[in-house]
Amino acid sequence: MTDFETWLSTAVKAIDSKAQQAAIARQQQLTKPAGSLGQLETIAIQLAGLQANERPTIDNVQITVFAADHGIVAEGVSAFPQSVTAEMIRNFSSGGAAISVLAKENNAQLSVINVGTVSQLEALNNVEDARISAGTLSFLKQAAMSEQQCQQAMSIGQKHIDQLVNAKTQLFIGGEMGIGNTSSATAIACALLNRNALQLTGAGTGLDSQGIDKKAQIIQQALDTHQGQLDSPLRILQFVGGFEIASLTGAYLHCAQVGIPVLIDGFISSVAALVAQRINPDSRSWFLFSHRSAELGHQQILAALEAETILDIGMRLGEASGAAVVLPLIRLSCSLHNNMATFSDAAVSTQS
Amino acid sequence: MTDFETWLSTAVKAIDSKAQQAAIARQQQLTKPAGSLGQLETIAIQLAGLQANERPTIDNVQITVFAADHGIVAEGVSAFPQSVTAEMIRNFSSGGAAISVLAKENNAQLSVINVGTVSQLEALNNVEDARISAGTLSFLKQAAMSEQQCQQAMSIGQKHIDQLVNAKTQLFIGGEMGIGNTSSATAIACALLNRNALQLTGAGTGLDSQGIDKKAQIIQQALDTHQGQLDSPLRILQFVGGFEIASLTGAYLHCAQVGIPVLIDGFISSVAALVAQRINPDSRSWFLFSHRSAELGHQQILAALEAETILDIGMRLGEASGAAVVLPLIRLSCSLHNNMATFSDAAVSTQS
Repeated sequence: MTDFETWLSTAVKAIDSKAQQAAIARQQQLTKPAGSLGQLETIAIQLAGLQANERPTIDNVQITVFAADHGIVAEGVSAFPQSVTAEMIRNFSSGGAAISVLAKENNAQLSVINVGTVSQLEALNNVEDARISAGTLSFLKQAAMSEQQCQQAMSIGQKHIDQLVNAKTQLFIGGEMGIGNTSSATAIACALLNRNALQLTGAGTGLDSQGIDKKAQIIQQALDTHQGQLDSPLRILQFVGGFEIASLTGAYLHCAQVGIPVLIDGFISSVAALVAQRINPDSRSWFLFSHRSAELGHQQILAALEAETILDIGMRLGEASGAAVVLPLIRLSCSLHNNMATFSDAAVSTQS
Repeated sequence: MTDFETWLSTAVKAIDSKAQQAAIARQQQLTKPAGSLGQLETIAIQLAGLQANERPTIDNVQITVFAADHGIVAEGVSAFPQSVTAEMIRNFSSGGAAISVLAKENNAQLSVINVGTVSQLEALNNVEDARISAGTLSFLKQAAMSEQQCQQAMSIGQKHIDQLVNAKTQLFIGGEMGIGNTSSATAIACALLNRNALQLTGAGTGLDSQGIDKKAQIIQQALDTHQGQLDSPLRILQFVGGFEIASLTGAYLHCAQVGIPVLIDGFISSVAALVAQRINPDSRSWFLFSHRSAELGHQQILAALEAETILDIGMRLGEASGAAVVLPLIRLSCSLHNNMATFSDAAVSTQS
């Protein structure tokens, strides 16, 4: 096996069921009717198992946005020009983007990794230059990337997570930026879930219904062209994926291997999580799902992952923004779990 | 008119539509696809109109829990003994309750006002003794309170809000504690919405299906008994309400009059908001609705208020806990609105 294959087949870290059971028992003793905190109870219990700690904490959070360009944009699939990918990387760096504001408000570390904009960018604060190529190729008629490029993109995600182990990150949030990347994510989802493009294609950044029809046609045409090649999660990622989606997949998979819980963002991030789950089904247990996006196909991807989301407020921005908005709820779930009094502590009578 | 009647008929503060329009225009210029932050955009826009400020801020938040006992508990409508009302007031004060933890984590001021526990309590930190009576009477066969008591309870809420004006509170969150109060709230909702008790009666703190049936029968019997008297929101509040629900109603109404936005909690709080809206329909525009409770009747009350909630995670605790969990999202909505760069600030290209 190559190093890459060895890495991919590395087992996921086991969940500590003893800590999880202790957390379940603790929830029953807190001064509230059993179950009355709803998902806030189950989140704390899940994190207890993942952190191997009856009282989990989420102080140290890393948000990383992987950014890249997409050759498929040449086919007219996006409402925004391709230049926006680079422009938004600068905006992330200078603090003006949604995720910049959210990371600051949440006291979370924000990093941006450029895995393939069409042009090289000047040096920017908090932006790592890891360009694999000048964007992917248009997957309408050819593979978006070579096998080697796909492995490289995934390995960038993997190596980034290795750094987080040293930094004692307690929760990882991955995000993406790349004009055209809902087309790539939709194509991946269609191939993995065996759907046609019309069933999963949405408005992305803001196409009208005519634009959505055209986008779906292009995605379907690409799926038909590559049909014979789309026989594994890795091949699907290589043929119709994007650099940033492959990096996210590598990052998510490695989080599960090294034991860092992941809070998944929206549509594109969930597609990357689905690829990770198809590569190693056990990785799924390390993922929490933050929000249901307004993007058409998201619900079907969540269903395939048996994922229950926390928030559903019509967000569809990407950049990890939905996960960052849910982060305070994850933290409150832990605070309630750790800091509420028990019935016996507070001398409160239990259910009669 | 009495002073009380004069107060009730005082007009609600007008919304600043100019600030609201400016906020709408600002949202269009921020570096994101239009609409892609979903409800986070509409929350900031609504608050801009309420605060008469294109860039609203929610730093100074007051959470007040009104607590009281209910005579109806004698009929066996609750899963918990009546002593829990007083025990939980002590737990609020000593910091062990869910709302204590949430207020602290959110850097919000927490006050508790005892408007009528069955027994007088010892002096407690952050608990104001404003007991009207030793709980309400059982509304199964008599009015829960006298007209004078109902006015007193509402006035306690009103006067509390007057203090917040001086304290420059930017958002008010009201909560309730009172064993038996889902029975009272359900009876109010049935009378206001012209439903029978079976349609709106839920599990409260945790009744089984047999317990719910019994609770619904008792509520229906009370509604039948008082039918001829339930001819106005105030009379409904007096006959089948509770002290803490009346105080919440007075507080919500007065917030709308003095211009403090309100974040409504769950089932019981929404019933108090419905009473306020029925007393003065204009008050509705000052209310934001935080979450959809797991309590059966909540959705129908929200529908009657044309209320869109933000969170739906199966909470059913009361104490203002659902609103306190949503508070960080309200703040993030303002932060994004105020601190994101515009397309021109950040030199990002707009939709092509």
